[in-house]
Amino acid sequence: MTKGEVIPKWFEGNMPEGSYRSIFKWGDPDAYKHPNQRLYRHMLNVFEMEDEDFSEAVGFGFEEVRQEVPVRLTSKQVDFFVELLGEENVFSDTYTRVKRSYGKGMIDALRLRHEIVENVADLVLAPRNREDVEAIVAFCDEEQIPVYVFGGGSSVTRGTEAVKGGVTLDMGVHMKRVLDFNEKDQTITVEAGMMGPELEALLNEAPSTLQAKRRYTCGHFPQSFEFSSVGGWVVTRGAGQNSTYYGKIEDLVLAQEYVTPIGTLQTGAYARQATGPDYNQIMIGSEGAFGVLTSVTLKLHRYLPEAKRYFATMFASWEDGLAAVREIMQGEFGVPSVFRLSDAEETDVGMKLYGIEGTPADTILKALGFEPMKKCLMLGMVDGDKAYTKTVMRRVKKVLRKYKTFDLTPFKATQRWEHGRFLDPYMREDLNDYGLLIDTLECSVRWDQLEEVHEQVRAFVKNRPKTVCMTHLSHLYPQGANLYFIFIAKMNEIEEYLDLQYGILEHIKESGAAMSHHHGVGKQTSPWLEEMAGSAYMGILRTLKDHFDPHNIMNPGGTLGLDMNEAQANKVWSKDL
Amino acid sequence: MTKGEVIPKWFEGNMPEGSYRSIFKWGDPDAYKHPNQRLYRHMLNVFEMEDEDFSEAVGFGFEEVRQEVPVRLTSKQVDFFVELLGEENVFSDTYTRVKRSYGKGMIDALRLRHEIVENVADLVLAPRNREDVEAIVAFCDEEQIPVYVFGGGSSVTRGTEAVKGGVTLDMGVHMKRVLDFNEKDQTITVEAGMMGPELEALLNEAPSTLQAKRRYTCGHFPQSFEFSSVGGWVVTRGAGQNSTYYGKIEDLVLAQEYVTPIGTLQTGAYARQATGPDYNQIMIGSEGAFGVLTSVTLKLHRYLPEAKRYFATMFASWEDGLAAVREIMQGEFGVPSVFRLSDAEETDVGMKLYGIEGTPADTILKALGFEPMKKCLMLGMVDGDKAYTKTVMRRVKKVLRKYKTFDLTPFKATQRWEHGRFLDPYMREDLNDYGLLIDTLECSVRWDQLEEVHEQVRAFVKNRPKTVCMTHLSHLYPQGANLYFIFIAKMNEIEEYLDLQYGILEHIKESGAAMSHHHGVGKQTSPWLEEMAGSAYMGILRTLKDHFDPHNIMNPGGTLGLDMNEAQANKVWSKDL
Repeated sequence: MTKGEVIPKWFEGNMPEGSYRSIFKWGDPDAYKHPNQRLYRHMLNVFEMEDEDFSEAVGFGFEEVRQEVPVRLTSKQVDFFVELLGEENVFSDTYTRVKRSYGKGMIDALRLRHEIVENVADLVLAPRNREDVEAIVAFCDEEQIPVYVFGGGSSVTRGTEAVKGGVTLDMGVHMKRVLDFNEKDQTITVEAGMMGPELEALLNEAPSTLQAKRRYTCGHFPQSFEFSSVGGWVVTRGAGQNSTYYGKIEDLVLAQEYVTPIGTLQTGAYARQATGPDYNQIMIGSEGAFGVLTSVTLKLHRYLPEAKRYFATMFASWEDGLAAVREIMQGEFGVPSVFRLSDAEETDVGMKLYGIEGTPADTILKALGFEPMKKCLMLGMVDGDKAYTKTVMRRVKKVLRKYKTFDLTPFKATQRWEHGRFLDPYMREDLNDYGLLIDTLECSVRWDQLEEVHEQVRAFVKNRPKTVCMTHLSHLYPQGANLYFIFIAKMNEIEEYLDLQYGILEHIKESGAAMSHHHGVGKQTSPWLEEMAGSAYMGILRTLKDHFDPHNIMNPGGTLGLDMNEAQANKVWSKDL
Repeated sequence: MTKGEVIPKWFEGNMPEGSYRSIFKWGDPDAYKHPNQRLYRHMLNVFEMEDEDFSEAVGFGFEEVRQEVPVRLTSKQVDFFVELLGEENVFSDTYTRVKRSYGKGMIDALRLRHEIVENVADLVLAPRNREDVEAIVAFCDEEQIPVYVFGGGSSVTRGTEAVKGGVTLDMGVHMKRVLDFNEKDQTITVEAGMMGPELEALLNEAPSTLQAKRRYTCGHFPQSFEFSSVGGWVVTRGAGQNSTYYGKIEDLVLAQEYVTPIGTLQTGAYARQATGPDYNQIMIGSEGAFGVLTSVTLKLHRYLPEAKRYFATMFASWEDGLAAVREIMQGEFGVPSVFRLSDAEETDVGMKLYGIEGTPADTILKALGFEPMKKCLMLGMVDGDKAYTKTVMRRVKKVLRKYKTFDLTPFKATQRWEHGRFLDPYMREDLNDYGLLIDTLECSVRWDQLEEVHEQVRAFVKNRPKTVCMTHLSHLYPQGANLYFIFIAKMNEIEEYLDLQYGILEHIKESGAAMSHHHGVGKQTSPWLEEMAGSAYMGILRTLKDHFDPHNIMNPGGTLGLDMNEAQANKVWSKDL
């Protein structure tokens, strides 16, 4: 057999119950998306690996979580929670506590693959309603017990990690109800534990589920959609893949309710107001450091799938692609909802991943002189009313006519991307199983600084031999865009991984970009926050923190750079594990 | 002569220099817009007045400001400012100090007409740059001298009033420069004292003024446009009349610089980020209570006047109008830029004001059964690229076909409104001269509460005999709108006026609306802020205030409800003047 024709034995099947893998595996326990053979061969090439290297996994993480992490609360404290919530809503077994303290970052998977269990809540609690949360927070404030919150569990910033022990509130058990639906206002109020897919299904079928006249959408589809909660969207300032039209979550929130150590608050519920600093925008992005988000009122959009349109184009160069997407965003004719531009390296990988390589389109592209490691793929989807989507499509095409492009719309490149858009993260486990780490970092840039940020980060990553660095723009604005980096490298050690990740963060910061456009800060990127945002901003954060949470019980342990320990502050946290 | 055929001797000409009128008169000293005869006759009717009542003015405010308000600073303090800024940038004469401490609210005009001079800064300072502001704020913090800021001077909330004396920084003397223009990012950075018309002219003519490739607009046109500064827009959370497309000022700001007692800060300059609470949105709307806004980076739009479209329609009823504009705002096909719906009373007055009454359109309207005190006028303007404006126009028309309407587009009703849109406030002085007070109050509502707020406020105002109460929606959103009240009454006493104004504020608050959509809070509406926004919000405000301004030198005296005296807190402030 020639090299690369073997199909590696990607794992599929039942993970051992109670195993580390059952915690770190992304998404649906029974779902998989394996690298296709083109992508597999690409990796063999890049990493100078042989089929043999994929004959035996470095590890699957099948080992059972055997650690017993003692509960460090007093029995009086435990009794309080049991009495308040009932036995059935208090979990003290280590497995549940690990599962509800770890997120889905590479650092989480890596630690679990190394059988490292740390920073685990003492108890997992499942509050039934706001009153439960109020009682828990009041008690914890009195007893100085740390309070963490777990929503969908897809944090990639160690956002949910119970660094100081204490309790983790699992919002998804009970607190996932619809509290109000107002069709006149086009709003829905849900508890924070409501999961994305459930909410979206409710809204799409609103005539039957909510006795509505019309169908609605939230328009918010983060890559983690399947395993993301409304509360998580809000406290991290998340973005959906369609945000170029619908906006980020901060644009979609009308009102919020928080339970904080100093009391419960309800923000104003108005589209806009001029009554001082923006209440909602002070609370959004607070990452559990001010209080527990209990409910959210979201602005809705009409659900009009019949009007949805797609486009896809290949540019001859990154420069052309950047100029064109900027021109579209500044064109005053409406905007696409999904709008992405991949750099040359990501384009080449994407051609493999989305099955364009080897098709007639690929042949034509080559013939027309669209060169590998130069050409750049743009994908777009247009949402809205039919007349609107038609107008945007026509004007996008008009802009594109100024550039050398090859139209991939007929080849359904965007539909192919859409089809697998929530599945790509599932490939991570396959890569990890064979010693390849994959991670993503993203930042927010203005157009004028974009190219430099891209160059600096790439230069740093590519300086490391045999390392993939793919970049795309997504979430576009008239003034700039989100720049999203994906890197893949053959490595297995935590320190090596963190050296690369931290190095990228340094270069993002030095190049002047905002550290995060939608991943939040958490405890992982927090050491860079002050350097990026300035000490004046940190002063505001600390002031608000002291106000809401004078005893530092809310998500303590470095969240938002607030109470970092020495290792965090020195950027060596977890390197020594 | 029959009643109403006399043309009142509305004042035109040179106001005596140094007079009260030269301070309270709205806008350009040499510009006027007098009520036309239809409006005049309407007032005769409503207020049961005779032509004779307009033969002699109650007063013109021609008296010279003769008060001598002593400067209560020490000579050492005065010397500091003179040494720092030079004699030419320090003003100690009472006239200048009154002129730079009063705003353009009815309460300001009324006090000056009553020759009441109070709450005047001790010195007016004209800082030349950020360094000057830093030196002033540092010195004032040390010496505990209050610091007020004067921009365009069009506050209607007593925002600039120097309640505690001290110094007022006049930003418009020097600090009105362009600091940066970035065409790639479509941004401009200006000092806070830059005035609206100057900025807009610069942008519209960007190819010659800024060596740009294209023409731009800020898209921000408050009614006070001619006498409003960029800094004022930002610190009050203002809105332009075209905000339904361009957004409010908080949507147009990319970055800001503030000089606060604890230091100078520069917010992040990214379209969006996920790095904690929103830095920009914490500072916008701070109304000078946290620090002095020194410069602003604004997001720009392309200036495409050739694509602008207008529409105007008469609805048979308020209910129809509301349903239609909501349907348009929720239609997902783009939005108008100016979008207004007048209630029945405002429609009838507007027909007179904008010269529609008595035209063929009016005759046809009557014949078709569009009844007075029932029919409602909608005005719209669509901005953007040609394809976009065409799409929006077509879809607006499609929505309107569902309702009984009469198309006023051919009669250029919106153009008539646009032509005079910055001039309407000039009529205030004419009315005041003859003992009629006119004032405006506005609030932010969700669709679902709109009708109740409208009914409650109207019921209260109309309970007073012979009082005009006109209402319109402007600044529309998918989730609600700005509801704007204009009242006119024959009265001359401050207490009587404040009773009416405060009563309206009570009813706005009780009906659940947000106290202000774009006028800000200032010192006038601040007693209602806590009741509306809640004590948790006030706790955040106080915390931020203490953080930035520990010695309470920044705009003290009740701004944002922060340090109200007893009279303010008890809502009797100024009633006893």
